[in-house]
Amino acid sequence: MTDADQQIHARITAMATRARAAAATLARLPAARLADALRAAADAIRADTAAIAAANAEDMARARAAALSPALLDRLYLDTARIAATADGVAAVAALPSPVGAVIDENRRPNGLVLQRVRVPLGVIGIIYESRPNVTADAGALCLRSGNAVILRGGSEATASNRAIHAAMVRGLESQGLPADAIQLVPTTDRAAVGAMLTAGGLIDIIVPRGGKSLVARVQAEARVPVLAHLDGINHLFIDAAADPAKALSIAVNAKMRRTGICGATETLLIDRAYGDPAPILAGLADAGCALRGDAAARAIDARVTPANDEDWDTEYLDAICAVAVVDGVDGAIAHIAAHGSHHTDSIVTEDAATAERFLAEVDSAIVMHNASTQFADGGEFGLGAEIGISTGRLHARGPVALEGLTTYKWLVRGDGQVRP
Amino acid sequence: MTDADQQIHARITAMATRARAAAATLARLPAARLADALRAAADAIRADTAAIAAANAEDMARARAAALSPALLDRLYLDTARIAATADGVAAVAALPSPVGAVIDENRRPNGLVLQRVRVPLGVIGIIYESRPNVTADAGALCLRSGNAVILRGGSEATASNRAIHAAMVRGLESQGLPADAIQLVPTTDRAAVGAMLTAGGLIDIIVPRGGKSLVARVQAEARVPVLAHLDGINHLFIDAAADPAKALSIAVNAKMRRTGICGATETLLIDRAYGDPAPILAGLADAGCALRGDAAARAIDARVTPANDEDWDTEYLDAICAVAVVDGVDGAIAHIAAHGSHHTDSIVTEDAATAERFLAEVDSAIVMHNASTQFADGGEFGLGAEIGISTGRLHARGPVALEGLTTYKWLVRGDGQVRP
Repeated sequence: MTDADQQIHARITAMATRARAAAATLARLPAARLADALRAAADAIRADTAAIAAANAEDMARARAAALSPALLDRLYLDTARIAATADGVAAVAALPSPVGAVIDENRRPNGLVLQRVRVPLGVIGIIYESRPNVTADAGALCLRSGNAVILRGGSEATASNRAIHAAMVRGLESQGLPADAIQLVPTTDRAAVGAMLTAGGLIDIIVPRGGKSLVARVQAEARVPVLAHLDGINHLFIDAAADPAKALSIAVNAKMRRTGICGATETLLIDRAYGDPAPILAGLADAGCALRGDAAARAIDARVTPANDEDWDTEYLDAICAVAVVDGVDGAIAHIAAHGSHHTDSIVTEDAATAERFLAEVDSAIVMHNASTQFADGGEFGLGAEIGISTGRLHARGPVALEGLTTYKWLVRGDGQVRP
Repeated sequence: MTDADQQIHARITAMATRARAAAATLARLPAARLADALRAAADAIRADTAAIAAANAEDMARARAAALSPALLDRLYLDTARIAATADGVAAVAALPSPVGAVIDENRRPNGLVLQRVRVPLGVIGIIYESRPNVTADAGALCLRSGNAVILRGGSEATASNRAIHAAMVRGLESQGLPADAIQLVPTTDRAAVGAMLTAGGLIDIIVPRGGKSLVARVQAEARVPVLAHLDGINHLFIDAAADPAKALSIAVNAKMRRTGICGATETLLIDRAYGDPAPILAGLADAGCALRGDAAARAIDARVTPANDEDWDTEYLDAICAVAVVDGVDGAIAHIAAHGSHHTDSIVTEDAATAERFLAEVDSAIVMHNASTQFADGGEFGLGAEIGISTGRLHARGPVALEGLTTYKWLVRGDGQVRP
């Protein structure tokens, strides 16, 4: 490790140590105090609209000079409306019920001991993100609402915007007597900071990467700290023989084409060989502008289907492209998903309840649906009020993760003098 | 990586791949089938008592020839009674209710979608253990009861015993139509197998080390797979000013001396400076054979207290030794525990309900107790029916972990044609 790297590690260690002290303070505060602080943070963002917009203009000028792509420029850009939406998002998180303090279960032992499992904050959360400056506010708010301290590491393109938003939030927190160390921003000039965060086991409890696949892949490969993330959303929609044709058509077009770039978009359409007339489904997708890549049986349904190669079944297009395979019944669908899925979201369209229940039970994904579009895979749509991310990991939290996923529990044992025989 | 290491990695990968296939089969079976299989495994262990005892005699002969310590020989030893107890343990796990299929929560969205979170098995669990051959049966049973496949890696001293127990269990499983790959035993001749298991991310979902501190430390340091464990149990018992003297004495002696070698044993006694007469507590410990190491204030209470050095506050003795510090009230106790504890189990003795609640809320440990002995930190005592281990980690499962901790959940979404606007 170079001297410069050691300095960065020392700096991250110092930040995380301060974060842990702040977390201890947060854990003692009533949930209402944290909500008040977030409302103050939202007000501070609103009050700082001009300063945030000016900081963003700096970032945008640098980004244009560096010839960043239009998509990246759009992600980076903040105008008055977007800043207002960011503040509203923080206020909305403040309004969510806190999971902290909830009693998960309770039992009284024959010896009179009363045991409770009670939700408590996780501790210190690390967020590593890319060009969207609103993540600074959004992720900071979710971590704080659940009683956690957070260390934010945004992308270098958004340095000025992130600083401006962070400064406003901290002012809001401090106005309500909360420690500034509850929400810390790593300076992006610290190039080795991401590596230092990923190896800060014991100091940072969980890392949430927010960004593109290369970021998530790096975090998953290098982290010695638990990571909450999904790498791929290779989602399947299976049209069973007993599917209602109208539902099959509308769900297929929505699941694939409503927004092609989100992780809940369908990437592969599986059609039961016994399904009556699949032509309208493929026509509906093609007419909506979707390129279709299929096996021989799929190509026989619609001439616009081009040949799929082996990679297509394992590809998350995030685009108006759909792989199409004809399979033999629900067993064929389950086997295809087991071989090619990414454990994110898969859905069956059928009117046969028994077939639906088999699919729900046997597909091993974070989210399994019946007669619904995979595009519903989202914390807001699930009624969680927000979302820090979607996890395809199996431990701790699975699927859309919001406030509850940012907590753990402790056992409280109340006695009146019991000793163990 | 040497050729030999590569071969071991390939072998562990192949075992884990077969385990995952077995896990998919287990996940489809009703819980009663798994219970039947475990009862058959218990019967097979009973039927193989002579063979298991003979295998154990081989291990014992080798261990004696290698001059292993009496404590280790005792851990390794199996007689007819211990083999019967092992079989009974498997049957007891069979009788536990299965957590799989339980609906954690359910909600109906305004658009009519019905969401459920349903418990499912984790998948593939790796158990790495040392000389106790009964872990082969015990851990294998817990993993199978919760619907998981398991890869067992026992100590080389117990090779023959583990093989004999494993063979019986697999025969029991197969007699009920379960796949043999559901419980696999890694040959201990594969020296690099532990390293291969610890880096089998994506194939093994969680590793549980069962053994001494050096094993746990190695697993925690090298694992790229999540680990469920505790390294230390530096547990504190705090005698508050408002403690009932009789409870304080009996809890202190029990918490420290009932069994000094278990992870729930108290290691440090904290006494409130304002507590009336601490002399009987220290006398009770000393009279019970406990060596006391204390700060100046503790030494002033009882002449048998020898000076503690800095390391004593951070030491898990697992022996008849107790560190004793005098602190200023519950704040002093909480601060001492925050500085020196290992987030395992800490207890307060007090008749003041408000002080007790502060301690319960502010001590950041997996288990926090009021007026109870820390020796209750155990899955059986907590009513969990069994225990795969105690976790001081913050994610997924905390404190005593039994069947529920070996599960995760999936989201089931049931609709009638909903598409996302």
